[in-house]
Amino acid sequence: MTATALAADVDLAAYYAGRSVLVTGGLGFVGSNLARALADLGAWVVVVDSLIPDYGGCLFNLDGYEDRLKINIADVRGHGIEYLVRGHDIIFNLAGQVSHINSMRDPFTDLDINCRAQLSILEACREGNPQTKVVFAGTRQIYGAPQYLPLDERHPVHPADVNGINKMAGEWYHILYNNVYGIRACSLRLTNTYGPRMLVRHSRQTALGWFIRQALDNEEIEIWGDGRQLRDYTYVDDVVDAFLRAGMTEAVNGKVINLGGRAPVSHLELISSLVEVAGSGSYRLVPFPPERKVIDIGDAYSSFALAAELLGWEPKVSLRQGLAETTAFYRRHKEHYW
Amino acid sequence: MTATALAADVDLAAYYAGRSVLVTGGLGFVGSNLARALADLGAWVVVVDSLIPDYGGCLFNLDGYEDRLKINIADVRGHGIEYLVRGHDIIFNLAGQVSHINSMRDPFTDLDINCRAQLSILEACREGNPQTKVVFAGTRQIYGAPQYLPLDERHPVHPADVNGINKMAGEWYHILYNNVYGIRACSLRLTNTYGPRMLVRHSRQTALGWFIRQALDNEEIEIWGDGRQLRDYTYVDDVVDAFLRAGMTEAVNGKVINLGGRAPVSHLELISSLVEVAGSGSYRLVPFPPERKVIDIGDAYSSFALAAELLGWEPKVSLRQGLAETTAFYRRHKEHYW
Repeated sequence: MTATALAADVDLAAYYAGRSVLVTGGLGFVGSNLARALADLGAWVVVVDSLIPDYGGCLFNLDGYEDRLKINIADVRGHGIEYLVRGHDIIFNLAGQVSHINSMRDPFTDLDINCRAQLSILEACREGNPQTKVVFAGTRQIYGAPQYLPLDERHPVHPADVNGINKMAGEWYHILYNNVYGIRACSLRLTNTYGPRMLVRHSRQTALGWFIRQALDNEEIEIWGDGRQLRDYTYVDDVVDAFLRAGMTEAVNGKVINLGGRAPVSHLELISSLVEVAGSGSYRLVPFPPERKVIDIGDAYSSFALAAELLGWEPKVSLRQGLAETTAFYRRHKEHYW
Repeated sequence: MTATALAADVDLAAYYAGRSVLVTGGLGFVGSNLARALADLGAWVVVVDSLIPDYGGCLFNLDGYEDRLKINIADVRGHGIEYLVRGHDIIFNLAGQVSHINSMRDPFTDLDINCRAQLSILEACREGNPQTKVVFAGTRQIYGAPQYLPLDERHPVHPADVNGINKMAGEWYHILYNNVYGIRACSLRLTNTYGPRMLVRHSRQTALGWFIRQALDNEEIEIWGDGRQLRDYTYVDDVVDAFLRAGMTEAVNGKVINLGGRAPVSHLELISSLVEVAGSGSYRLVPFPPERKVIDIGDAYSSFALAAELLGWEPKVSLRQGLAETTAFYRRHKEHYW
């Protein structure tokens, strides 16, 4: 799927062609897919990524695009960001520590990346690029255990791990800098995102990435609990489409906006679809591991009504289609991701 | 007013006598009043404070108590806290950067104190004192501009400055460590607190402290806007009473609980009462300064219904009585605070 096919109703190419954009975390899963789409649309793309081992950043994610964008290896926690934010029309700010388990094991690193570095980026914009627009990658998980479903943006936030608290603060800095300093910024609260270039090397970042790897390795996938828990999933091309729309839409400034899947899916339905689409792997139900149970939040899925209203966005790729694209990608490029 | 007079209905002395307690920020305004009350109740009190200039900490705040408690000068951002938290039955965690203006001028220092150091304290408890109980000083200001009044704990949080975002994160760490690690913790969300030992040296921390100084200096107090904005005020002895009750109440673990004033008071009513009680000073209305207007939140006052239910707490000291005690204190000890 090419980027221009993502959104027939808005003219992304007319907007992005010739614009200068920065993608932090641009060698990561969503960031690299976004950077590729931006390059395809004719934007001048600079990607910043620290390539911290096990975080998901990977040079192969921009394979074939090395001459079509600039890759700048840098850590958003350090100096250099003051320079790097300058001159860009739009900053897609996706650099983050996204593992819940890592955040509990090492809360200070999570704090430095998800809070302190976000403040650095925004301060750098205030100093050196106040005209820019920032689109931040937030997360549905800051809602915590849902009080009602689907989760809309008015749902109280109730983070259930250190990562959730820090992502919440990082998101708020963006809204604050929009409101107080006029640095146009918004946050997209992503739900479970999957697709080509997601991290499948270990299971600490996403469960689904690990399941995909297990299916392709023809292993038995363990489903925790009774498998009836509902979640929603968005294919990465749909998420990229939302970022592109947010970057060109003034109506989202100062707002947090949920993305969401087409429909809630049970774990059992997800895994059985995956095994069927992959044509390999199997599954069985096992009891919930205690260390995950204490931070588990039960059924959780988001309403994307506000994204539909403000961005004209909706998820277009079905779960089966998305899983087919994903498994095909990893079969083709297994040696770079395993 | 002695601490035991604060709460005839609960036997604070029976609970606190002989207990080991730590008060972080214990040379500051609320912290020092709390430390004095704890010493009066017979507790073994250790006070930790960094005495950062202009933050409000002041050795004279514990004048007369130097031999009745231990004063340990240390910065909660640094090492030492791992040792200092050990062995205490209760930790009253009041160390913080509390100036909204400072947080906008130097957001990273605010982050280090209000987020990172809070995480350090909680990690230190997890490592070295998991049996302790922590009572955190939160703030009403994280609600931001009220969507309804009075503000209860279900009101969405919407911080309007960097300080509010960081205090929100710091509070959430406490709730998280309670929920996940069983480190018993709660947060009291303080509203405007006033009384003896509050900082009156500059106007960056509280408006009321500065007004009190101006009245006692027989100066003209400027009231921003039309003076009709409503706020609530709690006298520090009432706030100390709430902390003492929270420290001995298991039902508050994992909860955030508003404190609140007896009734909302307009700026005009506040200042005219102050000038009358002080017998000096005057006031006039002036336009709102733009740099404050952008972070101003309009009318704001809290419901203390949950504190009443869980702690049996209510504010007992009237505004006029509190202002009389406060102005008398500063007349007596002006040389230490001006």
